[in-house]
Amino acid sequence: MSFSPLINELIDSLRTLPGVGRKSAQRMALHLLERNREGAYQLSEKLAQAMDKVGNCRECRTLSEHPVCAQCNDPKRDDLMLCVVGSPSDVFAVDQGGFKGRYFVLRGNLSPIDGLGPEAIGMPDLWARILRGNFNEIIVATSSTVEGEATAHYIAQMLLPKGIVVSRLANGVPLGGELEMIDGGTLSHALHGRKPLRI
Amino acid sequence: MSFSPLINELIDSLRTLPGVGRKSAQRMALHLLERNREGAYQLSEKLAQAMDKVGNCRECRTLSEHPVCAQCNDPKRDDLMLCVVGSPSDVFAVDQGGFKGRYFVLRGNLSPIDGLGPEAIGMPDLWARILRGNFNEIIVATSSTVEGEATAHYIAQMLLPKGIVVSRLANGVPLGGELEMIDGGTLSHALHGRKPLRI
Repeated sequence: MSFSPLINELIDSLRTLPGVGRKSAQRMALHLLERNREGAYQLSEKLAQAMDKVGNCRECRTLSEHPVCAQCNDPKRDDLMLCVVGSPSDVFAVDQGGFKGRYFVLRGNLSPIDGLGPEAIGMPDLWARILRGNFNEIIVATSSTVEGEATAHYIAQMLLPKGIVVSRLANGVPLGGELEMIDGGTLSHALHGRKPLRI
Repeated sequence: MSFSPLINELIDSLRTLPGVGRKSAQRMALHLLERNREGAYQLSEKLAQAMDKVGNCRECRTLSEHPVCAQCNDPKRDDLMLCVVGSPSDVFAVDQGGFKGRYFVLRGNLSPIDGLGPEAIGMPDLWARILRGNFNEIIVATSSTVEGEATAHYIAQMLLPKGIVVSRLANGVPLGGELEMIDGGTLSHALHGRKPLRI
Protein backbone atom coordinates (compact mmCIF):
# COMPACT_ATOMS: atom_id res chain seq x y z
CA MET A 1 0.00 0.00 0.00
CA SER A 2 0.95 3.63 -0.04
CA PHE A 3 -0.68 6.88 1.00
CA SER A 4 -3.55 8.43 -0.91
CA PRO A 5 -2.53 10.12 -4.21
CA LEU A 6 -2.50 13.71 -2.93
CA ILE A 7 -0.34 12.78 0.07
CA ASN A 8 2.07 10.92 -2.24
CA GLU A 9 2.31 13.97 -4.50
CA LEU A 10 3.04 16.17 -1.49
CA ILE A 11 5.75 13.72 -0.35
CA ASP A 12 7.30 13.76 -3.84
CA SER A 13 7.26 17.56 -3.91
CA LEU A 14 8.91 17.77 -0.49
CA ARG A 15 11.72 15.59 -1.84
CA THR A 16 12.75 18.43 -4.16
CA LEU A 17 14.13 20.13 -1.03
CA PRO A 18 17.88 19.54 -0.70
CA GLY A 19 18.81 16.89 1.88
CA VAL A 20 15.27 15.50 2.14
CA GLY A 21 14.81 11.81 1.29
CA ARG A 22 11.71 9.65 1.11
CA LYS A 23 11.44 9.00 4.87
CA SER A 24 11.95 12.63 5.93
CA ALA A 25 9.51 13.85 3.27
CA GLN A 26 6.91 11.38 4.56
CA ARG A 27 7.46 12.55 8.12
CA MET A 28 7.15 16.21 7.04
CA ALA A 29 3.95 15.62 5.06
CA LEU A 30 2.23 13.71 7.88
CA HIS A 31 3.42 16.21 10.48
CA LEU A 32 1.93 19.11 8.51
CA LEU A 33 -1.33 17.26 7.79
CA GLU A 34 -1.81 16.05 11.35
CA ARG A 35 -0.43 18.91 13.40
CA ASN A 36 0.34 22.08 11.52
CA ARG A 37 -1.98 22.87 8.62
CA GLU A 38 -1.68 26.56 9.40
CA GLY A 39 2.09 26.38 9.02
CA ALA A 40 1.72 24.47 5.76
CA TYR A 41 -0.58 27.12 4.27
CA GLN A 42 1.88 29.78 5.30
CA LEU A 43 4.80 27.88 3.80
CA SER A 44 2.84 27.42 0.58
CA GLU A 45 2.15 31.15 0.40
CA LYS A 46 5.72 32.21 1.25
CA LEU A 47 7.15 29.84 -1.36
CA ALA A 48 4.99 31.28 -4.12
CA GLN A 49 5.60 34.85 -2.95
CA ALA A 50 9.38 34.48 -2.78
CA MET A 51 9.57 32.77 -6.18
CA ASP A 52 7.39 35.51 -7.72
CA LYS A 53 9.17 38.49 -6.25
CA VAL A 54 12.79 37.65 -5.45
CA GLY A 55 15.15 38.46 -8.30
CA ASN A 56 18.78 39.52 -8.49
CA CYS A 57 20.17 42.82 -7.22
CA ARG A 58 21.07 45.00 -10.19
CA GLU A 59 24.43 45.93 -8.62
CA CYS A 60 25.79 42.80 -6.95
CA ARG A 61 23.54 40.05 -8.38
CA THR A 62 22.64 38.65 -4.96
CA LEU A 63 19.06 37.48 -4.36
CA SER A 64 16.76 40.32 -3.35
CA GLU A 65 13.17 41.39 -3.91
CA HIS A 66 14.33 44.98 -4.44
CA PRO A 67 16.07 46.17 -7.62
CA VAL A 68 19.08 47.12 -5.47
CA CYS A 69 19.75 45.08 -2.31
CA ALA A 70 20.23 46.43 1.22
CA GLN A 71 24.04 46.11 1.17
CA CYS A 72 24.42 47.93 -2.16
CA ASN A 73 22.08 50.64 -0.90
CA ASP A 74 23.92 51.11 2.40
CA PRO A 75 25.82 54.45 2.21
CA LYS A 76 27.99 53.48 5.21
CA ARG A 77 29.81 50.64 3.45
CA ASP A 78 33.34 51.05 2.06
CA ASP A 79 33.24 51.83 -1.67
CA LEU A 80 36.92 51.03 -2.16
CA MET A 81 36.72 47.29 -1.50
CA LEU A 82 34.81 44.66 -3.46
CA CYS A 83 34.39 41.08 -2.30
CA VAL A 84 33.59 38.56 -5.05
CA VAL A 85 31.77 35.41 -3.89
CA GLY A 86 30.22 32.38 -5.60
CA SER A 87 26.71 32.39 -4.15
CA PRO A 88 24.28 34.56 -2.13
CA SER A 89 24.82 32.49 1.01
CA ASP A 90 28.54 33.38 0.87
CA VAL A 91 27.61 37.08 1.18
CA PHE A 92 25.98 36.20 4.49
CA ALA A 93 29.06 34.22 5.62
CA VAL A 94 31.62 36.91 4.68
CA ASP A 95 29.47 39.59 6.31
CA GLN A 96 29.53 37.62 9.55
CA GLY A 97 33.32 37.75 9.29
CA GLY A 98 33.10 41.54 9.59
CA PHE A 99 33.61 42.68 5.97
CA LYS A 100 32.19 46.16 5.42
CA GLY A 101 32.80 46.78 1.72
CA ARG A 102 30.73 45.96 -1.36
CA TYR A 103 29.90 42.54 -2.80
CA PHE A 104 29.55 40.89 -6.15
CA VAL A 105 27.95 37.46 -6.49
CA LEU A 106 29.05 35.16 -9.32
CA ARG A 107 26.87 32.25 -10.34
CA GLY A 108 29.25 29.57 -9.06
CA ASN A 109 32.82 29.00 -10.23
CA LEU A 110 34.45 28.50 -13.62
CA SER A 111 34.15 24.83 -14.52
CA PRO A 112 34.79 24.12 -18.22
CA ILE A 113 34.01 20.42 -17.66
CA ASP A 114 30.43 21.38 -16.71
CA GLY A 115 30.24 23.92 -19.54
CA LEU A 116 30.55 26.87 -17.14
CA GLY A 117 32.66 29.54 -18.83
CA PRO A 118 33.14 33.20 -17.86
CA GLU A 119 29.82 34.31 -19.42
CA ALA A 120 27.82 31.55 -17.72
CA ILE A 121 28.96 32.57 -14.24
CA GLY A 122 28.49 36.30 -14.86
CA MET A 123 32.02 37.65 -15.43
CA PRO A 124 30.82 40.37 -17.87
CA ASP A 125 28.58 41.76 -15.10
CA LEU A 126 31.57 41.69 -12.74
CA TRP A 127 33.71 43.75 -15.17
CA ALA A 128 30.85 46.21 -15.62
CA ARG A 129 30.52 46.51 -11.82
CA ILE A 130 34.27 47.08 -11.39
CA LEU A 131 34.31 49.72 -14.15
CA ARG A 132 31.35 51.53 -12.57
CA GLY A 133 33.07 51.50 -9.17
CA ASN A 134 36.23 52.99 -7.79
CA PHE A 135 37.76 49.98 -6.06
CA ASN A 136 41.37 49.71 -4.98
CA GLU A 137 41.12 46.12 -3.77
CA ILE A 138 39.15 43.12 -4.98
CA ILE A 139 38.93 40.24 -2.49
CA VAL A 140 38.14 37.05 -4.38
CA ALA A 141 36.37 34.91 -1.76
CA THR A 142 35.46 32.02 -4.05
CA SER A 143 35.74 28.60 -2.40
CA SER A 144 39.07 26.89 -1.73
CA THR A 145 38.52 24.23 -4.40
CA VAL A 146 40.19 23.72 -7.78
CA GLU A 147 37.30 25.56 -9.49
CA GLY A 148 37.32 28.36 -6.92
CA GLU A 149 41.08 28.86 -7.33
CA ALA A 150 40.77 28.83 -11.13
CA THR A 151 38.04 31.49 -10.92
CA ALA A 152 40.24 33.62 -8.66
CA HIS A 153 43.21 33.32 -11.03
CA TYR A 154 41.04 34.25 -14.00
CA ILE A 155 39.84 37.40 -12.21
CA ALA A 156 43.39 38.33 -11.11
CA GLN A 157 44.67 37.93 -14.64
CA MET A 158 41.94 40.08 -16.16
CA LEU A 159 42.56 42.84 -13.61
CA LEU A 160 46.37 42.79 -13.96
CA PRO A 161 46.45 45.72 -16.48
CA LYS A 162 44.16 47.84 -14.26
CA GLY A 163 46.59 47.91 -11.32
CA ILE A 164 43.92 46.93 -8.80
CA VAL A 165 45.09 44.75 -5.86
CA VAL A 166 43.44 41.32 -6.06
CA SER A 167 43.56 39.28 -2.84
CA ARG A 168 42.38 35.87 -1.60
CA LEU A 169 41.17 34.80 1.84
CA ALA A 170 43.96 33.28 3.96
CA ASN A 171 44.12 29.48 4.19
CA GLY A 172 44.98 27.91 7.52
CA VAL A 173 43.78 26.17 10.64
CA PRO A 174 40.15 27.05 11.52
CA LEU A 175 39.60 28.41 15.05
CA GLY A 176 38.94 25.54 17.44
CA GLY A 177 40.37 23.08 14.89
CA GLU A 178 42.31 20.06 16.17
CA LEU A 179 45.58 19.72 14.26
CA GLU A 180 45.22 15.95 13.87
CA MET A 181 41.91 16.41 12.02
CA ILE A 182 43.34 18.86 9.48
CA ASP A 183 44.62 17.77 6.07
CA GLY A 184 48.22 18.19 4.95
CA GLY A 185 47.42 20.78 2.27
CA THR A 186 45.77 23.10 4.79
CA LEU A 187 48.63 22.63 7.27
CA SER A 188 51.17 23.41 4.56
CA HIS A 189 49.33 26.71 3.89
CA ALA A 190 49.19 27.36 7.64
CA LEU A 191 52.97 26.81 7.96
CA HIS A 192 53.82 29.08 5.03
CA GLY A 193 51.49 31.76 6.33
CA ARG A 194 52.80 31.57 9.93
CA LYS A 195 52.93 34.81 11.90
CA PRO A 196 55.18 36.08 14.68
CA LEU A 197 53.47 35.77 18.06
CA ARG A 198 53.16 39.19 19.58
CA ILE A 199 53.11 39.46 23.36
CA MET B 1 23.26 41.65 7.75
CA SER B 2 20.65 39.13 6.85
CA PHE B 3 18.76 38.21 3.70
CA SER B 4 16.04 40.40 2.25
CA PRO B 5 12.70 40.28 4.14
CA LEU B 6 10.90 37.88 1.79
CA ILE B 7 13.79 35.41 1.85
CA ASN B 8 13.88 35.60 5.66
CA GLU B 9 10.15 34.90 5.81
CA LEU B 10 10.60 31.90 3.52
CA ILE B 11 13.43 30.61 5.74
CA ASP B 12 11.24 31.00 8.84
CA SER B 13 8.37 29.17 7.15
CA LEU B 14 10.66 26.30 6.12
CA ARG B 15 11.65 25.93 9.77
CA THR B 16 8.11 24.76 10.58
CA LEU B 17 9.08 21.49 8.85
CA PRO B 18 10.11 18.88 11.42
CA GLY B 19 13.87 18.36 11.68
CA VAL B 20 14.72 21.57 9.79
CA GLY B 21 16.84 24.14 11.64
CA ARG B 22 18.02 27.61 10.64
CA LYS B 23 20.97 26.43 8.52
CA SER B 24 19.03 23.77 6.60
CA ALA B 25 16.12 26.16 6.02
CA GLN B 26 18.54 28.74 4.62
CA ARG B 27 20.09 26.14 2.34
CA MET B 28 16.64 25.02 1.15
CA ALA B 29 15.44 28.58 0.46
CA LEU B 30 18.56 29.55 -1.52
CA HIS B 31 18.56 26.25 -3.41
CA LEU B 32 14.95 26.76 -4.50
CA LEU B 33 15.52 30.43 -5.42
CA GLU B 34 18.72 29.80 -7.32
CA ARG B 35 18.12 26.42 -8.91
CA ASN B 36 14.61 25.09 -8.70
CA ARG B 37 11.86 27.72 -8.86
CA GLU B 38 9.67 25.30 -10.79
CA GLY B 39 9.93 22.75 -7.96
CA ALA B 40 9.15 25.45 -5.40
CA TYR B 41 5.97 26.49 -7.23
CA GLN B 42 4.93 22.86 -7.40
CA LEU B 43 5.61 22.34 -3.70
CA SER B 44 3.62 25.47 -2.88
CA GLU B 45 0.67 24.18 -4.90
CA LYS B 46 0.81 20.63 -3.51
CA LEU B 47 0.98 21.92 0.06
CA ALA B 48 -2.15 24.04 -0.36
CA GLN B 49 -3.94 21.27 -2.26
CA ALA B 50 -3.17 18.59 0.32
CA MET B 51 -4.16 20.83 3.25
CA ASP B 52 -7.42 21.74 1.49
CA LYS B 53 -8.47 18.28 0.45
CA VAL B 54 -6.95 15.67 2.76
CA GLY B 55 -9.21 14.78 5.66
CA ASN B 56 -9.75 11.63 7.72
CA CYS B 57 -11.19 8.38 6.40
CA ARG B 58 -14.71 7.92 7.82
CA GLU B 59 -13.99 4.29 8.68
CA CYS B 60 -10.43 4.11 9.97
CA ARG B 61 -9.57 7.82 10.58
CA THR B 62 -6.35 7.65 8.56
CA LEU B 63 -5.46 10.61 6.35
CA SER B 64 -7.12 10.45 2.94
CA GLU B 65 -8.65 12.80 0.41
CA HIS B 66 -11.54 10.38 -0.11
CA PRO B 67 -14.36 9.91 2.43
CA VAL B 68 -13.32 6.25 2.70
CA CYS B 69 -9.62 5.37 2.18
CA ALA B 70 -8.22 2.77 -0.22
CA GLN B 71 -7.62 0.14 2.49
CA CYS B 72 -11.14 0.42 3.92
CA ASN B 73 -12.55 0.22 0.39
CA ASP B 74 -10.49 -2.85 -0.58
CA PRO B 75 -12.87 -5.85 -0.69
CA LYS B 76 -9.95 -8.32 -0.63
CA ARG B 77 -8.85 -7.46 2.92
CA ASP B 78 -9.73 -9.66 5.90
CA ASP B 79 -12.79 -8.31 7.73
CA LEU B 80 -12.15 -10.41 10.82
CA MET B 81 -8.97 -8.65 11.97
CA LEU B 82 -8.54 -5.06 13.05
CA CYS B 83 -5.16 -3.45 13.69
CA VAL B 84 -5.23 -0.36 15.93
CA VAL B 85 -2.32 2.06 15.44
CA GLY B 86 -1.38 5.48 16.79
CA SER B 87 -0.78 7.44 13.58
CA PRO B 88 -1.28 7.24 9.79
CA SER B 89 2.40 6.47 9.20
CA ASP B 90 2.02 3.34 11.35
CA VAL B 91 -0.59 2.02 8.89
CA PHE B 92 2.10 2.20 6.23
CA ALA B 93 4.64 0.42 8.48
CA VAL B 94 2.28 -2.41 9.56
CA ASP B 95 1.18 -2.91 5.96
CA GLN B 96 4.79 -3.39 4.94
CA GLY B 97 4.92 -6.15 7.57
CA GLY B 98 2.30 -8.03 5.53
CA PHE B 99 -0.90 -7.36 7.51
CA LYS B 100 -3.99 -7.83 5.33
CA GLY B 101 -6.85 -6.96 7.67
CA ARG B 102 -8.51 -3.64 8.51
CA TYR B 103 -7.04 -0.66 10.34
CA PHE B 104 -8.09 1.93 12.85
CA VAL B 105 -5.96 5.01 13.53
CA LEU B 106 -6.04 6.61 16.99
CA ARG B 107 -4.77 10.16 17.45
CA GLY B 108 -1.70 9.16 19.47
CA ASN B 109 -1.72 7.36 22.81
CA LEU B 110 -3.44 7.92 26.13
CA SER B 111 -1.37 10.39 28.12
CA PRO B 112 -3.25 11.92 31.06
CA ILE B 113 -0.22 14.10 31.89
CA ASP B 114 -0.64 15.85 28.50
CA GLY B 115 -4.43 15.96 28.91
CA LEU B 116 -4.97 13.18 26.36
CA GLY B 117 -7.86 11.04 27.58
CA PRO B 118 -9.87 8.39 25.68
CA GLU B 119 -12.05 10.98 23.90
CA ALA B 120 -9.09 13.09 22.79
CA ILE B 121 -7.40 10.19 21.02
CA GLY B 122 -10.61 8.93 19.40
CA MET B 123 -11.64 5.90 21.49
CA PRO B 124 -15.40 6.49 20.92
CA ASP B 125 -14.81 6.19 17.17
CA LEU B 126 -12.87 2.97 17.77
CA TRP B 127 -15.79 1.45 19.73
CA ALA B 128 -18.19 2.50 16.99
CA ARG B 129 -15.94 0.91 14.37
CA ILE B 130 -15.67 -2.34 16.35
CA LEU B 131 -19.46 -2.48 16.83
CA ARG B 132 -20.05 -1.91 13.11
CA GLY B 133 -17.58 -4.68 12.22
CA ASN B 134 -17.42 -8.39 12.86
CA PHE B 135 -13.88 -8.77 14.18
CA ASN B 136 -12.60 -11.79 16.07
CA GLU B 137 -9.17 -10.30 16.77
CA ILE B 138 -7.99 -6.81 17.54
CA ILE B 139 -4.22 -6.31 17.20
CA VAL B 140 -3.21 -3.26 19.23
CA ALA B 141 -0.07 -2.04 17.44
CA THR B 142 0.46 1.11 19.50
CA SER B 143 4.10 1.89 20.25
CA SER B 144 6.15 0.00 22.86
CA THR B 145 6.27 2.94 25.26
CA VAL B 146 4.56 3.46 28.60
CA GLU B 147 1.77 5.43 26.87
CA GLY B 148 1.42 2.86 24.08
CA GLU B 149 1.16 0.02 26.61
CA ALA B 150 -1.39 1.96 28.69
CA THR B 151 -3.48 2.53 25.57
CA ALA B 152 -3.32 -1.19 24.73
CA HIS B 153 -4.38 -2.17 28.25
CA TYR B 154 -7.27 0.28 28.17
CA ILE B 155 -8.52 -1.21 24.88
CA ALA B 156 -8.11 -4.78 26.17
CA GLN B 157 -10.06 -3.96 29.33
CA MET B 158 -12.91 -2.33 27.42
CA LEU B 159 -13.17 -5.32 25.08
CA LEU B 160 -13.00 -7.97 27.84
CA PRO B 161 -16.81 -8.38 28.07
CA LYS B 162 -17.11 -8.77 24.30
CA GLY B 163 -14.97 -11.92 24.12
CA ILE B 164 -12.84 -10.57 21.29
CA VAL B 165 -9.15 -11.63 21.30
CA VAL B 166 -6.92 -8.60 21.84
CA SER B 167 -3.26 -9.09 20.92
CA ARG B 168 -0.04 -7.05 20.94
CA LEU B 169 2.92 -7.14 18.55
CA ALA B 170 5.75 -9.38 19.82
CA ASN B 171 8.72 -7.69 21.48
CA GLY B 172 12.19 -9.01 20.76
CA VAL B 173 15.43 -8.64 18.90
CA PRO B 174 15.00 -6.79 15.56
CA LEU B 175 16.29 -8.64 12.48
CA GLY B 176 19.93 -7.75 11.89
CA GLY B 177 20.18 -6.44 15.46
CA GLU B 178 23.47 -6.88 17.34
CA LEU B 179 22.78 -8.26 20.82
CA GLU B 180 25.28 -5.89 22.49
CA MET B 181 23.33 -2.89 21.16
CA ILE B 182 19.99 -4.06 22.54
CA ASP B 183 18.65 -2.93 25.91
CA GLY B 184 17.96 -5.28 28.80
CA GLY B 185 14.19 -4.84 28.72
CA THR B 186 13.98 -5.92 25.08
CA LEU B 187 16.30 -8.89 25.72
CA SER B 188 14.16 -9.93 28.69
CA HIS B 189 11.10 -9.97 26.39
CA ALA B 190 13.10 -11.86 23.77
CA LEU B 191 14.14 -14.50 26.34
CA HIS B 192 10.59 -14.96 27.64
CA GLY B 193 9.25 -15.21 24.12
CA ARG B 194 11.93 -17.69 22.93
CA LYS B 195 10.87 -20.30 20.40
CA PRO B 196 12.05 -23.86 19.70
CA LEU B 197 14.35 -23.95 16.69
CA ARG B 198 12.84 -26.16 14.04
CA ILE B 199 15.15 -27.92 11.60
